[in-house]
This record gives sequence, structure tokens and C-alpha cells, in this order.
Amino acid sequence: MKSVRELLPEAKKGPKQRLAVVFAHDEFVMDAVKVAAEAGIVSPILIGDSPEIHRLIREFGINEPCEIIHEPDPERASRVGVDLINAHRADLLMKGLLDTKILLKAVVNSETGIKAARLLSHVGLVSFPEFDRILFVTDGAMNIAPTVEEKILIIENAVRLAHALGYEEPKVGIVSAVEKVNPKIASTVDAEAINDYYRINPPSGFVIDGPFAVDNLVSPESVRHKGLKSPVAGIADIMLFPNLDGGNIFYKTSVFLGHASAAGLVLGAKVPIILTSRADSAETKSNSIALGVISCHGLSHSRH
Amino acid sequence: MKSVRELLPEAKKGPKQRLAVVFAHDEFVMDAVKVAAEAGIVSPILIGDSPEIHRLIREFGINEPCEIIHEPDPERASRVGVDLINAHRADLLMKGLLDTKILLKAVVNSETGIKAARLLSHVGLVSFPEFDRILFVTDGAMNIAPTVEEKILIIENAVRLAHALGYEEPKVGIVSAVEKVNPKIASTVDAEAINDYYRINPPSGFVIDGPFAVDNLVSPESVRHKGLKSPVAGIADIMLFPNLDGGNIFYKTSVFLGHASAAGLVLGAKVPIILTSRADSAETKSNSIALGVISCHGLSHSRH
Repeated sequence: MKSVRELLPEAKKGPKQRLAVVFAHDEFVMDAVKVAAEAGIVSPILIGDSPEIHRLIREFGINEPCEIIHEPDPERASRVGVDLINAHRADLLMKGLLDTKILLKAVVNSETGIKAARLLSHVGLVSFPEFDRILFVTDGAMNIAPTVEEKILIIENAVRLAHALGYEEPKVGIVSAVEKVNPKIASTVDAEAINDYYRINPPSGFVIDGPFAVDNLVSPESVRHKGLKSPVAGIADIMLFPNLDGGNIFYKTSVFLGHASAAGLVLGAKVPIILTSRADSAETKSNSIALGVISCHGLSHSRH
Repeated sequence: MKSVRELLPEAKKGPKQRLAVVFAHDEFVMDAVKVAAEAGIVSPILIGDSPEIHRLIREFGINEPCEIIHEPDPERASRVGVDLINAHRADLLMKGLLDTKILLKAVVNSETGIKAARLLSHVGLVSFPEFDRILFVTDGAMNIAPTVEEKILIIENAVRLAHALGYEEPKVGIVSAVEKVNPKIASTVDAEAINDYYRINPPSGFVIDGPFAVDNLVSPESVRHKGLKSPVAGIADIMLFPNLDGGNIFYKTSVFLGHASAAGLVLGAKVPIILTSRADSAETKSNSIALGVISCHGLSHSRH
């Protein structure tokens, strides 16, 4: 795939997935659920205030069958969502009109939750109108100031998603403002520590290098000007950002100024979690559902 | 002006400025000097290895008169450049093929240098093909991890440039990943401290607010979705980034993925300093010279 816009048609190629939406009574979310259900990629399970959900189903003219579970309390609705995942009655989880913290609290609960990796992290996918590939952005939404150890977990979550999407050996670039290690620039020091880690523990199924400024990861011309030699320079698939601010700045600039198409998932739970924000367009939200569906196809494929 | 592409025609409206280029014998720099000289906005003073400079003048077919000062040592050439500024024999300084540190060391020298403000900082200007205004980006090139006090100096350097460019009351937005102060997110804590400072010392000739995610500064639709009320939300001119990484990520993403046009200057010296990098296009370099010329016009105007 060269563009995020191909996610929805790609998702149609595999089996329909069951999407549990916690507090589904949100116009923006319902709009995206409609698109995904009508595309035949998900069967929605809508949890929340039943009368309000019914009203929105009528308002949006959703004709596909939806299972509705009435649970007007946000904490209990979150628990219903993760219980569905644990009972294998749903394949994907999506956040609706509730505080992200409430849903994630249910996800990470050590007894009843669905945490599967050591860290939850967010991966955004962006594609620009005139650019040749999809860029994976991590983490611009969840982890504020990850340590080197956490950055390694963030990388591994993103690589797992890339594998599920069919990338055999994704190229991971560690982002900074410069390409030389400078003790005064923390992101370059972290990059060096990450490189050191992977020298001792060679990466399996991906290549990684850094630090690099953004241009050195996306522009072969910029790489030539700088005379850089690296297996990821100019051709990175996954961009590891120094912190929440950095990843968020890249993602928002891409979407709101660069006309990029986008999708995003929270990774590290038993199933992908679709956790879009109000500012995301309905298209970004339905792209994200499609991304979750494809990653379910890929993960079930790699299990067999 | 709505676009950085208007800088060059705008620069032609005022008097020609004398541009001292330190270590001018660089192909990328010479290409930009040619454009600016032929547009009639600068008289070049080219400092460096004279035979090499002559060779490039012939290679690029520069027909405008150039003063050439032979000084093949980078430190002495830098000193020649700042001496020209101090002697009022040049109006603008530009870096050629030498290490930035060497030039800046001459600039900030307390006895012979040309430092004028308490802090040197970089301002980038970017404009997107389908966006209604120029965005000022600071600081994605010089200050690594500025303190709150340094951020205030960075803001004031950028505001001074905006005033020189004719902005009466530029809107300054403080960038973060979120719009709520969160003690765990340092950029939001800094934003609150900056707001507190300006409540006690009301800003003169600009408005400022933050923290905001990028979309909340550039997208009125995003501001509506979030229900934000602020004099800068959705309409910011100047974006103060949390640190070097953040500003650099924005600038590079804009230029290398978002097809933005760009220009940049180092501010805080007696004259604007044009300090572009090898990865910048010749267009960005000539835009930066034009930006420097316009800011000289504006500053001399505001002195009278």
C-alpha cells in the first residue's frame, strides 16, 4: 500500500471483524462506524446509552445490523468492552464519547483487562498526496516522555503492526533535529542508546538507525546533500519520535497543513484499539477502523 | 504577504542591501546569491578563498558586480564579516561553506562581535500551497532546550521580525501536544509560566496564548470541534515550539513532505544572519536573503 486511502479497500479482502465501540453515542464515531459497516469490514457492537445509540442509528441511516448493549455508565461500559474481547466475542475495541483514561483503565486492569505487551503505545499512519509510501508515526498520542527502554517497546509495537500489514522488514528511523549524536540533545543520546541495544540484541525482521532529522528519513535528495550512509536514510517506514510533543507535531502538521491522509491505533493490547480524537475527520476514523481490521487479518494469518 | 514566495518581489520594493557572505565558495550559497543579486535586492561582498570564489562566479555566470575579500581561514573570514557589519559596510551577514559554530563564535564575541539581543534565535517562515498565511517557526535550528526565560527572548526576537515585516499585532501560539496544562508534559508547564509572565508584563504589540497542539493553532475547524476560546487559536502567526526537536520536526515536515516554501533567519544580532543548511533548496536560500532584506527595510523604517 502506498496510501492510507487504500486501507478500506484492502480491509474488504479479508473476513469481517467484530468491532466493540465503548460509548458509541458520538456523532463523529457513528459516522465512521457507518462507513465501516456499510463497507462490510465490521459488525458493530455498540455499547452505551441505548436510546441515544438508537437515535443516532436512525439519524445516520445505518442499515447494517448492529448489536446494542445498554450500559450508560462509562466505567462499566469500558468493562463490557474489554470483557467482549476476553470472551472472544469482539475482535477490535473503539473509543467513543468518553474520557480516554476511563477506557484505558479498563484495558490495563491487571485482572480483568486486555493488556498483552509491556507497554501500550500509539501508532499513526500518514500518507501525503505526492509521497511514495505510508509513514508510521510513533508515539504522538500516548507516551509523554518515554525512556530508552520504553522507546524500544514502542518500536516493537510498531514493528508488529507493520508485520501484520505485510511489511517483511520495515525500516525504522529514530527522529531528532540532527543526525550527529550531541550530548546536549537528549533525543540523539537516546538514539545512540537504542542503537547500542540493537547491536547487542539484533533486530528481528526490521532495520533501525538514527538519529536523523525528518528530511534525512524521507528525502533521498537531502540524504545525498548530507552524504549520509544508512539502511534507513531517505527510505524510513517507521519514524520513532523523541517524545509526545515531537510525534504529535509531525502528525498534526501532516494532516492539518500537509493534506496527509491518516489512521491510527493503540497497540499493546490483545486487540488493536481505535482511539481517535474529536479533531480527527470521519475519514481518519474509518481509515483507523480499516487499519484495525487489516491488522486483525495479518495477526491471525501470522498465528497460523 | 500570504506566501514566502512573495518575499523576493517584496524585497525589490526597498533599497538594495549589502550582503556579506562568509566563506562564499559554496555552490548552493552562490546559486542563491546569484538570484538575489540579479533580482537587484543585494550587493554581494564575498569573503573566502578568492580563486575559488572567482571560479564559482564564472561557473554560475554571475554578471552583477561583487566585492571579493580574500581570506581563506574560516575564523578570520568570520571576523572580516562581523567587522564589515560593525563598520556599517554591510547590512546582512550570510553563512557559506564553514561550520556554523565558527561564524557564530565571531558573532557573539563580546568585544568584536555583533550580538544585540540577550539571545540569538532562529526563525523559519513557511507557507503551504493551500494555506492562507505565513507561519513563523521558532526555534527549530539553534536553541536546543530553552528555559522559560529563553523562550520569552525567542518570542521577542520573532515578534521583532514580524513587526519589521509589517505585522502590527502578530498572534503567538505556544505549541505542545495538548491544550491543557499537564504537570507531566513539560511543554504545557512552560506554556503556563510564559502566560503568567505576560500577565504581569503585558505583551506590547502582540498577543500570546497556549499551550496548543498544532491543529489548534492552524485549523479553525479543529478549534470549533474542541470548543476552544483564545485570541490565537486557529489563527496563529508565530508558533513557539517546545524545543529544537519540535521546531525542527515542524519545519522539515512542512518543507520536505508538505511542499511548503520556506525562509529563515538568525535573529538577535545587529543585523539578520542568513544561516541556511545544505539540505535547504536554492529557493529557500534566496527566500531567506529576501527575508533579511525586507527585515532591514522594516527595521530602518521603524528607526525613523
